[in-house]
Amino acid sequence: MPTFRTRRADVLYPEDQYELTEDGRVPVTYQRTAKYQDGNTIDWLHEEDLERERHHALQSQAGTRGVLLPALDSAKMWFIVIATGVAIGLAGAWLDVLVKWLSDLREGRCSHGFFYNSNACCTGLDPGEICHEWQTWGEAFNVTSIFGSSLLQATIYVVLAVVFAGSAATMVVTYAPQAFHTGIPEIKAILGGYVFDAFLSPWTLLIKALGLALTVASGLSLGKEGPLVHVACCMAFFLTRFFKEFRHNEAQKRRLLAAAAAAGVSVAFGSPLGGVLFGLEELDAFASESDVIWRGFVASAVAAVALQWVNPFSTGKLVLFQVTFVSDAWRAFELIPWLTLGVIGGILGSLLIRLNVEIALYRRNSVLRDWPVLEVVCVSAFTAAVCYLIVFARVQTSELVANLFQECDPTKGDYHGLCNPTATGQNIFLLCLTAVLKIVLTAWTFGMMVPAGIFLPTIGIGACLGRAMGLVMQSLYRAYPMAWIFQSCPPDPSVRCISPGFYAVIGASAMLGGVTRMTISLVVILFELTGALSHVLPIMISVMTAKWVGDALGKDGIYSVWIAMRRYPWIPPVEYRDRGETGANIMKPLSEIIVIEDCVTTVKDLKALLVEHSFHGFPVIDSHGEFVGYATRQALAGGLDRLQLDQDTDRNKKCTFSKNRSRIPADERIDLEFTLEDSIIQLRKEVPQELVVNVFQKLNLRQILFTHSGKLVGLVTKRDIVNLMTAHFPHDAALADPPQVPHR
Amino acid sequence: MPTFRTRRADVLYPEDQYELTEDGRVPVTYQRTAKYQDGNTIDWLHEEDLERERHHALQSQAGTRGVLLPALDSAKMWFIVIATGVAIGLAGAWLDVLVKWLSDLREGRCSHGFFYNSNACCTGLDPGEICHEWQTWGEAFNVTSIFGSSLLQATIYVVLAVVFAGSAATMVVTYAPQAFHTGIPEIKAILGGYVFDAFLSPWTLLIKALGLALTVASGLSLGKEGPLVHVACCMAFFLTRFFKEFRHNEAQKRRLLAAAAAAGVSVAFGSPLGGVLFGLEELDAFASESDVIWRGFVASAVAAVALQWVNPFSTGKLVLFQVTFVSDAWRAFELIPWLTLGVIGGILGSLLIRLNVEIALYRRNSVLRDWPVLEVVCVSAFTAAVCYLIVFARVQTSELVANLFQECDPTKGDYHGLCNPTATGQNIFLLCLTAVLKIVLTAWTFGMMVPAGIFLPTIGIGACLGRAMGLVMQSLYRAYPMAWIFQSCPPDPSVRCISPGFYAVIGASAMLGGVTRMTISLVVILFELTGALSHVLPIMISVMTAKWVGDALGKDGIYSVWIAMRRYPWIPPVEYRDRGETGANIMKPLSEIIVIEDCVTTVKDLKALLVEHSFHGFPVIDSHGEFVGYATRQALAGGLDRLQLDQDTDRNKKCTFSKNRSRIPADERIDLEFTLEDSIIQLRKEVPQELVVNVFQKLNLRQILFTHSGKLVGLVTKRDIVNLMTAHFPHDAALADPPQVPHR
Repeated sequence: MPTFRTRRADVLYPEDQYELTEDGRVPVTYQRTAKYQDGNTIDWLHEEDLERERHHALQSQAGTRGVLLPALDSAKMWFIVIATGVAIGLAGAWLDVLVKWLSDLREGRCSHGFFYNSNACCTGLDPGEICHEWQTWGEAFNVTSIFGSSLLQATIYVVLAVVFAGSAATMVVTYAPQAFHTGIPEIKAILGGYVFDAFLSPWTLLIKALGLALTVASGLSLGKEGPLVHVACCMAFFLTRFFKEFRHNEAQKRRLLAAAAAAGVSVAFGSPLGGVLFGLEELDAFASESDVIWRGFVASAVAAVALQWVNPFSTGKLVLFQVTFVSDAWRAFELIPWLTLGVIGGILGSLLIRLNVEIALYRRNSVLRDWPVLEVVCVSAFTAAVCYLIVFARVQTSELVANLFQECDPTKGDYHGLCNPTATGQNIFLLCLTAVLKIVLTAWTFGMMVPAGIFLPTIGIGACLGRAMGLVMQSLYRAYPMAWIFQSCPPDPSVRCISPGFYAVIGASAMLGGVTRMTISLVVILFELTGALSHVLPIMISVMTAKWVGDALGKDGIYSVWIAMRRYPWIPPVEYRDRGETGANIMKPLSEIIVIEDCVTTVKDLKALLVEHSFHGFPVIDSHGEFVGYATRQALAGGLDRLQLDQDTDRNKKCTFSKNRSRIPADERIDLEFTLEDSIIQLRKEVPQELVVNVFQKLNLRQILFTHSGKLVGLVTKRDIVNLMTAHFPHDAALADPPQVPHR
Repeated sequence: MPTFRTRRADVLYPEDQYELTEDGRVPVTYQRTAKYQDGNTIDWLHEEDLERERHHALQSQAGTRGVLLPALDSAKMWFIVIATGVAIGLAGAWLDVLVKWLSDLREGRCSHGFFYNSNACCTGLDPGEICHEWQTWGEAFNVTSIFGSSLLQATIYVVLAVVFAGSAATMVVTYAPQAFHTGIPEIKAILGGYVFDAFLSPWTLLIKALGLALTVASGLSLGKEGPLVHVACCMAFFLTRFFKEFRHNEAQKRRLLAAAAAAGVSVAFGSPLGGVLFGLEELDAFASESDVIWRGFVASAVAAVALQWVNPFSTGKLVLFQVTFVSDAWRAFELIPWLTLGVIGGILGSLLIRLNVEIALYRRNSVLRDWPVLEVVCVSAFTAAVCYLIVFARVQTSELVANLFQECDPTKGDYHGLCNPTATGQNIFLLCLTAVLKIVLTAWTFGMMVPAGIFLPTIGIGACLGRAMGLVMQSLYRAYPMAWIFQSCPPDPSVRCISPGFYAVIGASAMLGGVTRMTISLVVILFELTGALSHVLPIMISVMTAKWVGDALGKDGIYSVWIAMRRYPWIPPVEYRDRGETGANIMKPLSEIIVIEDCVTTVKDLKALLVEHSFHGFPVIDSHGEFVGYATRQALAGGLDRLQLDQDTDRNKKCTFSKNRSRIPADERIDLEFTLEDSIIQLRKEVPQELVVNVFQKLNLRQILFTHSGKLVGLVTKRDIVNLMTAHFPHDAALADPPQVPHR
């Protein structure tokens, strides 16, 4: 005969008032203590249970309510997905406009309106007409001497950089310390079940968005991509607050956050497909659930439509760095420089990661720890001063990348002499110098108390190196057009054979591969970013090479490294191979576990237990050591609260959780069986460790209980698995405590 | 103290000769019976166990062997991945060349060499020069009258179609019945753990490749995409035979097959990224294991490089249907026709699936069942005769699609008057007629005894409908250029505003969405196929709409429907929601399970059990009903074989599996504990059904055992879960028995 589960108390929200009459239970006063605190890990199976029971309760409503309520439920979910998409699309566009205006302000101002950026100031001119409305600061203040004008320009350039970066850092340090850094490691941990509500608060949202615009405009070596993902997740989190079915269910909330993250990437790169794939590969968020992928897909598309509708740069295109290739075909010999770029990307990517880790450790363990704002001010002043001197570093990285990806076209003008064949040597030197400078600056900047993404600077470094390699190849071809290696080029040397712009794209892919160790999503993002579809194969090959080389030098990408340093409970989706160990090797044995004894533990004991231990839940065993069940502290506290056991007579009653209760007279016992979890995974302690890790990875568990012949023998939690997986990393937990902000 | 598992006997291959001395076990004679028969489901956990132990054995070798052997292992794996990629790339190119030549043969011949196709025949001519070397059959046979020439052309066109299709069907029916159909449903089932070695045999490989070329050339309404995936998997399967580590391990074999499938898609569509995503989304093959995704990525890239290197069409491009858009921007009002196309795609897709199912059922239950070759001959004759009359249906579908995707360009000539503004009405009628015809023909063809893919015909149907919609919009714009809806178009009506070619792309995406219900991989394939990067958003939107509409009309895509009809044990990766049922509702209770009793079952009983029951394995319980372990029939048979229990005295010895053995005198017992599986998942019968399904989906299990207080209470197998998931489909198992081929 089918046995149906009974509904449990904590399915219900405070708003729900109902009577549980079937089994004679009394109405519930909802336990208002939050289920999880920041720093906890959610119990997916428990959350899924609640959702299932809620869903079941909705569907079993009589008449049209049974049809309408589930439909309304689904409508709410789609509302959040679509609203998040629209909101992040608009926010992304607004951010672009703000950044453009702020960074132009460092160069000059518009004479017919302070709030116009340089492009908006000069629109409506006929071709060839010179724009007089946009004035450099020298012109605006009527400084005529070249020296004075240059000095004024440089001073304003540096001072504004410091002002922007300093104010961003002050805001972050004072109001929302969680708004620093990229946010991707935290999002990965949160989507895996980590509870970190402060990280997603509206306050963080505001500071991160505003601070991001300021830091990007300040010219620090950072990008907006990761922080935008964080902002999108904050938005979705904010929206979930208005719907109790998402506010109270951590699993459902995370499904929506995954869609929001995809939308964030979609807006950051103008890459709707890349967003979905990023969610799939890097965030490991969708866990192959096709309807969650589907939501990410919709959110991404909506966000991209919203961005395109606002059209912040009036190009009508999503593609950020349009690439135009001289020839559609590439030649086999070009694989040699491209593979070389892949190797360089892998090596420099690993170097960047290592440098970044060292600087982060130094920052934490030195006097810098106490002066975060001062650090930002100094670094931004240094960045601005040095970059002002190097022509390729002076502009925004996004502008630099767009120009490096562009082929030389005599009709379009020459970007800082990049296409001048007589200056090739000088250009190669400058590009390499810029790359080295950016590596050092990025390694330092990524981790300061400002919002900072790593994507764009990495693309910039790679594009510089790639373009340099392209110039080398081009000058080789010009010098020896008849050499054996170039025989597949057209015989006429005036026809171009090498496209240095595409070499820059390859360089960027290789560098990104080395730093992030992503594969497919990276390729998709890159070719959505550039439109370089016919050249997808070389991009794939360079990413592959960079990842191989990088993995040989250090197993983890930059996000994994930060997750390990900050000790978030996140299990990487990589294959784990044990060396013959079983579950018994990793479990905490019964002797070290706090358990509740069925028919033995009294109400008084139980209350003491709940006060004394902060564990998320407790296994229940009977007097023979046999496993009875598992109850969360929340369910136990709620149960005790609900039964109103305040009289002294109740204090010595035994708690019963199973049929053993018949052994105890009815007036000496309290039945708490309803507090036990439905969904508990138990394994035998003999199972291979590999399978234990795999079950944790695939089912997103919080704990597994080990039994032998029905008796509880041990327990393993997610934290144990995380420790196992990060054991190879030397700086595990180096930044585990949240950033200190002593000097507000 | 850590407890290490002992090595098990069946890790070893017949080739390995070794002594198990540590625990005094005797050398093993390997049980030569195959582990699985066709129709079985593999036990992933068991296979993973074997692989783990093998890996461990390799690594624990002393000295350099311990380093070299694992490296060699990995080199073998990469060899298979890369060799499969190269092989399928070359095979795909060869197939393209063969198909082109065969299908050109239906129209005419090359006078200076029979084996040249029309393009190869006419190369080397100056622009404007007329090609005299390629002769239609009328010219070749010097038939001068128009009527006679037309009749001859039509006759040869139809006769050759019948000959090609008939010979393909004869080959399939006679030599390799498994080579029929697309192969994707079977690949999905195999990657999920189904054993179907006949489906991957070299014979099937040969017949499928050859038959595919013939059927595609015959002009039947089918594509080469699905079958190419099948061919790629056959190649990988063939290569695994040479390496014992893959030949003997079904899990490792499937990981390689997944990479091969990705390579197949990569070649079929010239879409390396699409291949990886197809593997990820549709085949659900990679199970979020990043190194398996990685292999698919490499195989895809290698296959695409190989294809591009052969360059069968001398275009130097992977992009099959290059799309050139008149304008890069699209306008908001165009969303109306595109959404309409999405709805039409969803409806017609569902219709096509339903029609296909009805025809498949009719074929199985009528006289057609006995005459498969005759059916193919009749259908191909009908297809050829009807298609010859309709101008858009006469050419190869791939050529039609390429032309429909193309924008009108006065410099390039007009494809059958498609760009003639005065013939718009006629063109719309012809396109719709072609679409309807192709729907009927495709529904019939997909399921006949020939290799047949569904992708290309679906794209063809969608492209016709989309182009028709584009023509409607274009003529509306020409008629009312000042209408409110067109106000975002350029004011000058001679500038084009509507791009009908892109409408064809949208139509194709919508139709594919409706038929296959894929999402992301479809979008990637389509935009790799067409290069329509700037228009990725409309493609996403149309696919989304089509899937929504299609899902409302019928939950399953065409591949799921065929899997259900053929009753393959495949669990769809969709979310399953129970209605309060627990594991107890779905499990087979203990009373119906054949078990082995520890210390009770004698050797004689055990042998009888193995003969009598064909189950894959048997749970072992002790006399109190307590669960001891699970042993596969292969392990038990191997164990009995190994202990050489042939004397009569042995027959009545008790089999012991646990420490209970101490109760029995040493000379009255046989210890078989080593036959128990390491990796066994047990759950409590109270767990929600949803969790049971989820565990099966995520961990790819073969069975779960249910215990209560340590006692075995039931068992659920993959088949039970599959039945649960396909319960909503009325024609479940309608084609369960393999196709009959009585008339060889």
